[in-house]
Amino acid sequence: MAPDTTSIPGYTIFREGDYDSVAAAAVTPQGTPHPLDQLSIAEIPVAAALFRQYASPKQLKFNCITLREPKKKEYTAFKQGNGPRPDRRAYAIVIDRQSGKIAEAVANLTTSKVEEWKDLNDVMPTLTLEDLDKLEEMSRKDHRVIEACKGLGITDMSKVFIDAWAIGMDERWGYERRLQQGLAYYRNSEFDNQYAHPLDFSVVADTEREEILSVDIRYVNGERTAMPVTEHNYLPQFIGDKYNHDRLKPIDIVQPQGVSFQVKGNELSWAGYKMHIGFNYREGIVISDVRAHDMHQDRERTLFNRISVVEMVVPYGCPEKPHHKKHAFDVGEYGSGFMSNSLKLGCDCKGAIHYMDGVMALASGEAAVVKNAICIHEEDNGLLYKHTDFRDGTVISARDRKLIISQIITAANYDYGFYHIFSLDGTYKLEMKLTGMLNTYPLHPTEQAAPYGTEVASRITAHNHQHIFSLRIDPEVDGQNNSVVQNDAVASDYPVGSPQNFYGNAFYSKKTPLRTSLEGAADYCYETQRTWDIINPNSINPASKRPVGFKIINTAAAPLLAKPGGVVHNRAAFARKPLWVLPYKDYELYPAGDFVCQSTGQENHPHNQTILDWAKRNESIENTDIVCYLQFGLTHFPRTEDFPIMPAEPVGIMLRASNFFVKNPGLWVPPSSVCVDTMSRNAFDTSCCAGSKPGDHSRL
Amino acid sequence: MAPDTTSIPGYTIFREGDYDSVAAAAVTPQGTPHPLDQLSIAEIPVAAALFRQYASPKQLKFNCITLREPKKKEYTAFKQGNGPRPDRRAYAIVIDRQSGKIAEAVANLTTSKVEEWKDLNDVMPTLTLEDLDKLEEMSRKDHRVIEACKGLGITDMSKVFIDAWAIGMDERWGYERRLQQGLAYYRNSEFDNQYAHPLDFSVVADTEREEILSVDIRYVNGERTAMPVTEHNYLPQFIGDKYNHDRLKPIDIVQPQGVSFQVKGNELSWAGYKMHIGFNYREGIVISDVRAHDMHQDRERTLFNRISVVEMVVPYGCPEKPHHKKHAFDVGEYGSGFMSNSLKLGCDCKGAIHYMDGVMALASGEAAVVKNAICIHEEDNGLLYKHTDFRDGTVISARDRKLIISQIITAANYDYGFYHIFSLDGTYKLEMKLTGMLNTYPLHPTEQAAPYGTEVASRITAHNHQHIFSLRIDPEVDGQNNSVVQNDAVASDYPVGSPQNFYGNAFYSKKTPLRTSLEGAADYCYETQRTWDIINPNSINPASKRPVGFKIINTAAAPLLAKPGGVVHNRAAFARKPLWVLPYKDYELYPAGDFVCQSTGQENHPHNQTILDWAKRNESIENTDIVCYLQFGLTHFPRTEDFPIMPAEPVGIMLRASNFFVKNPGLWVPPSSVCVDTMSRNAFDTSCCAGSKPGDHSRL
Repeated sequence: MAPDTTSIPGYTIFREGDYDSVAAAAVTPQGTPHPLDQLSIAEIPVAAALFRQYASPKQLKFNCITLREPKKKEYTAFKQGNGPRPDRRAYAIVIDRQSGKIAEAVANLTTSKVEEWKDLNDVMPTLTLEDLDKLEEMSRKDHRVIEACKGLGITDMSKVFIDAWAIGMDERWGYERRLQQGLAYYRNSEFDNQYAHPLDFSVVADTEREEILSVDIRYVNGERTAMPVTEHNYLPQFIGDKYNHDRLKPIDIVQPQGVSFQVKGNELSWAGYKMHIGFNYREGIVISDVRAHDMHQDRERTLFNRISVVEMVVPYGCPEKPHHKKHAFDVGEYGSGFMSNSLKLGCDCKGAIHYMDGVMALASGEAAVVKNAICIHEEDNGLLYKHTDFRDGTVISARDRKLIISQIITAANYDYGFYHIFSLDGTYKLEMKLTGMLNTYPLHPTEQAAPYGTEVASRITAHNHQHIFSLRIDPEVDGQNNSVVQNDAVASDYPVGSPQNFYGNAFYSKKTPLRTSLEGAADYCYETQRTWDIINPNSINPASKRPVGFKIINTAAAPLLAKPGGVVHNRAAFARKPLWVLPYKDYELYPAGDFVCQSTGQENHPHNQTILDWAKRNESIENTDIVCYLQFGLTHFPRTEDFPIMPAEPVGIMLRASNFFVKNPGLWVPPSSVCVDTMSRNAFDTSCCAGSKPGDHSRL
Repeated sequence: MAPDTTSIPGYTIFREGDYDSVAAAAVTPQGTPHPLDQLSIAEIPVAAALFRQYASPKQLKFNCITLREPKKKEYTAFKQGNGPRPDRRAYAIVIDRQSGKIAEAVANLTTSKVEEWKDLNDVMPTLTLEDLDKLEEMSRKDHRVIEACKGLGITDMSKVFIDAWAIGMDERWGYERRLQQGLAYYRNSEFDNQYAHPLDFSVVADTEREEILSVDIRYVNGERTAMPVTEHNYLPQFIGDKYNHDRLKPIDIVQPQGVSFQVKGNELSWAGYKMHIGFNYREGIVISDVRAHDMHQDRERTLFNRISVVEMVVPYGCPEKPHHKKHAFDVGEYGSGFMSNSLKLGCDCKGAIHYMDGVMALASGEAAVVKNAICIHEEDNGLLYKHTDFRDGTVISARDRKLIISQIITAANYDYGFYHIFSLDGTYKLEMKLTGMLNTYPLHPTEQAAPYGTEVASRITAHNHQHIFSLRIDPEVDGQNNSVVQNDAVASDYPVGSPQNFYGNAFYSKKTPLRTSLEGAADYCYETQRTWDIINPNSINPASKRPVGFKIINTAAAPLLAKPGGVVHNRAAFARKPLWVLPYKDYELYPAGDFVCQSTGQENHPHNQTILDWAKRNESIENTDIVCYLQFGLTHFPRTEDFPIMPAEPVGIMLRASNFFVKNPGLWVPPSSVCVDTMSRNAFDTSCCAGSKPGDHSRL
């Protein structure tokens, strides 16, 4: 029925009549969905049909069909029992197959009506895997590409591989056509590592009109750069004999009584926490309605309304063409949902795992599922607390536990793990793990890799780059009205020897309220160990007599190294600041704009506002419904150790209950051990682990 | 036989004839010890006898008896087969019981001779647990303390508890007497949490002469401050009914085939790493001779000669008396070895654990053992690497593993976990976990906790403080001669629009060699994401063509907030900089001086040089045998969540192979999974985990 019969690794595609074959509750429509549930495989084609009907006789290609989340007021009223169940709605970005024109639209699935339709100009939507897949096929057939390969002595085009990337920017074609760039590699054999054989040319294509626009060969002193021929492999076919099978004995992690979390549909409860797990093509995992049971006040309290990774940028630092075009916005340009891996037990996480699937739409309007896109599991997290009374040796210790909601995406060469982590001490942490393959390029004999890259193997350079992630937190710290206070650890203003600071040891936390969204665009300061508290000025901690809060700890803030006025600096305005605080607005989500591909960062674009535009409205962010964008990441100067496959490098950001609970929120956790050491001479035995069953003390 | 028959929780004391009852190889003398093995329970009394004999007729009290490690040249020659086995030597600090005079001495146990004896002035040695234990007993009997308690309505002195601390500084008695300060608390009942009942007075004592020098009551507007009476407990006796036993199901971590490391005496090998594990009363764990097998060059390479935590300081930020005296140097003033916990499986770590004991000397010269002072275990560490080929769904992933060598110490109220962590990607990390109890103080009704503290419960303040740790790394990156290069990530100097940086994306790592020890005293810079490489300029990575190195990543550098000229700033000069690099000198170890108690930080003290003195020699640190001191930590503004017992807070520092190995050093690790997704429609099944035995894929 659909013209685009496609096949994408990891995707299972559903056509009419297919639903019966699937049992997963998250995928098939069973009962009434939660208002935040992703669209099901049944809802997507229904939505597609509504959009098609509306647009007829235009022929539509779907760039996305995804849940249109209810407006906050509507959803809040429903949650609180003060309003009706929100209608199910689908949001789509569509492309007119004939004109190539873009529109965005909203269909009400409950009433079967298209409620909104907006034609857009000067914007380009996300590149789907279907879009990206076209480039390689087209390139291999292109005579200029074939010629370029011949110049390197390559004639077997089946051995040439082209990684498709968003164009970044290429001023030769303006912003009218939907562009991709292709980076070229070679494989000696089926499983050979192509990143060991980068080629010296790149391709620019319009995959919408299926046209190769340019094949750019980089000449150095008028010469081609030979392909590095040495193989550098990491697959067992090649290096299997180097494996040492005896060195590491298995570590088995088992939960004989099962997991500690309960999942009902997409609602999860664990250790007093409750939340909803959503997913979409762009953000991937979306965590909503995060609440915690407060043991001390014996009530449920709200923490966060919504958590997701809304953007990232990977600017490369080599100024030479074509490398200036490498600055991937993986969320906005490709979609963390689209690029999701289907996860496997033991390959990605250990222990007792609960998986959820990711549902997306294809260009055809068919539903596609990434099976096991979301991994939910627990891990032991070491000590929750411990104290020994030095007088009598009384020891108490309890173990912490993590709940981890994760996904892994593959963005061409790079692979990113996203780990949303909750722990028993009232901490939420996003940890990213960066692995996969370095982007590589051949060096001409007259060239050195430095200063813009590292020669990771003979005549192969890997360029300096940054990874800057944007975590969007819609806080709901004891309610919707929150504020942010900046904390700077500073020495007392009083000099040494003065009565107020005689010994010079005085220091305190200087508090600066961020009052408007321009003040909310804040820098990190190492010298003052800067943190920020998201507080609720209306909810006072009875012990500290201060507003309750959650502290943002962002020691991995990474300054954007691109220069003001340059392309990346313009396009990735969000990455200029580690914190932005804004008043909440429905559907204001993506800090680099809703349409990131080929964006210029132009201010006040009519269809593509960015966080800079939002901040410049300079509205109040005090004691109101706010959202926080937290930027963190790392600056990566490649090492030879990162080749041919990168050891996973972690980087993270943390929000920690800070005067939110009146006491340690984990005191309900039964201690793994309460010990009283006997004090007698020669007594190695202790009456340890009292209260635990024998042999049971290693468990909790 | 010994005059000081003492009993200390966690210590097992050995007297003559006791050795037979102990089987542990690390404790009893079996065969020839490794030159870096801690002194055994047999060697300590032998050394004590030698020192006694030498000093006779003086009566000695031993402050410490510990291994005198061989000089580096001697040990290196022995290791390389170019020199004889070094003699076993003991180092002691002794106190003349009569005069109170201090001396340090070295005895050669192989030749049974005292080789060095040096009388010292103006220095005070570590306070042992035996020293500290006296204060409480003395205080309870002191009439001024009894009076001070009466003033608060307390008459049962058995309910009064005095935490003994190093004095910090108290100018009233100069630096002639060996001083302690006592912080006072109350317990309603045996297991009541005393930190919920801080008292408003403190004690100064000379425990050497067993004399209470002062009881300092803090009057506020001429009034006493009432003791906070509400109980805030954390032991099961009190809060057991609040435990939720159903929420968390057990997580079992088991190694059915045993651990992956081998231990021979105190030498350990794991996953290609080799090292020696030592221990002493002051540093606790000492890791020496760290080597790694390089799979790519098929040879053993040296990484670090010696790793240990040589100092820490916890300056409190409240300028009011008596709080200006609170700035504990836990390593130098008390000893991380002396304060070691005896560890228990499941209470402290999970899985298959290997323990080692810590051996120390008592004042009597008898040996005391902390059983299970050192924990050695492995943990799964998530992804080592993963990559998915987006074209065909081929996936490879391998799991990382950690080797963790840890100890936990109790420093009165605080408890610190030290975790030395090696992982398969060529990373060494020191992670500290901070838990235990906040230091608390009562608030007078006219007082507020802010700005120097937090009211963690009604009328109880916990003061702002920092924890700054000093990790000493004696690197041996491919040999002894190393250098340090500072790396700053900076934008290109060329403006946007210039041919060299047309698009403004250019950035690079600016390299600054640190040439002398004054240059080696370096600051952290967040704006440039500063790191430092310990390189070997004589060993060139054949791929990168740069010197091989290990990168210091210190994003938790914490600036010392105490003011220049103040007491802590003077005493803790080491904490002024996150990095010091110095030429190696035998027995130059402790950056706040060998004798930290009552030190002033005076420069060029004849018997107590500090890192500032060493740095000011301004010697070359280029291409020579160097040592690095890495300072990191955190600034703690207490939260109500930290009361009544603190959730463990981690902070760490990392050294990572950086162009040391020519490729990913973990490529020998068999992948846990190699998958090829089938691409057929509706196929949820994949030919995943090929190459693993069925059911086996969740193990490695």
